[in-house]
Amino acid sequence: MTSQSSTDPNLQAAIEEAELGAREGGIPIGSVLVHRGEILGRGHNRRVQNGSVVLHGEMDALENAGRQPASVYRDSVLYTTLSPCPMCTGAILLYGIPKVVIGENRTFLGEEEVLRSRGVEVEVVQDEACIRMMEQFIADRPELWNEDIGE
Amino acid sequence: MTSQSSTDPNLQAAIEEAELGAREGGIPIGSVLVHRGEILGRGHNRRVQNGSVVLHGEMDALENAGRQPASVYRDSVLYTTLSPCPMCTGAILLYGIPKVVIGENRTFLGEEEVLRSRGVEVEVVQDEACIRMMEQFIADRPELWNEDIGE
Repeated sequence: MTSQSSTDPNLQAAIEEAELGAREGGIPIGSVLVHRGEILGRGHNRRVQNGSVVLHGEMDALENAGRQPASVYRDSVLYTTLSPCPMCTGAILLYGIPKVVIGENRTFLGEEEVLRSRGVEVEVVQDEACIRMMEQFIADRPELWNEDIGE
Repeated sequence: MTSQSSTDPNLQAAIEEAELGAREGGIPIGSVLVHRGEILGRGHNRRVQNGSVVLHGEMDALENAGRQPASVYRDSVLYTTLSPCPMCTGAILLYGIPKVVIGENRTFLGEEEVLRSRGVEVEVVQDEACIRMMEQFIADRPELWNEDIGE
């Protein structure tokens, strides 16, 4: 682990994915999908690495978890280092994932209200490592960050 | 073209993508992203072909269009053979695509009200070829269809 932290090990795994993305020259956002304590899929933003416009961290974690029955999604928690954008929010709703743990929403506030309004439990940790990582990235690469959020 | 049709050539291109997906043994939903009359990306659902849980037809079209500036998305129209699910709806909102042309919403009604509430123009064609294709698919493969919509 490169971030020392007292955080939940699943959030820590998402942070490690974000750090891996940063080391690849990409956007430092990571995510893991966890079913009954077991990580089913890990992922990080692939815009730079794969030229992908759909593989945000959360989407990459879902993709890497593979095809799962609805019953698995409905008993899972999605961890993400950053508040989910509209696309990732929609994926959470599509698959009926009942809980999302968010590293931070200070640098970007996604569609948390939509999630809550549809009955998804949303927990925001405001993890210092997550905040620092995004603050640094946005300061260094504002044009890349704006591209990733459609601005 | 395997479907004779008097439809918009862009919707026809989305239908051809859906038909291609069906011939591959996949879920017959297709989409194209069109910028000022030019198709930037074509796509179809890849759940069966790639084991993908994120590449719905609309997502695949966006992915195949590649990284585009916000100004391009904001001057584009997304054509899709079927009413968009929450994930694809979220992607449309993320990238600020101002208009969506939908082949049909009789076999599945997606998040059209969310799109309209966020200012997206939504046009539903109720194209007979699109309806027949989905009716046949849902009758033949109900378990695969339910998986694709998280049920």
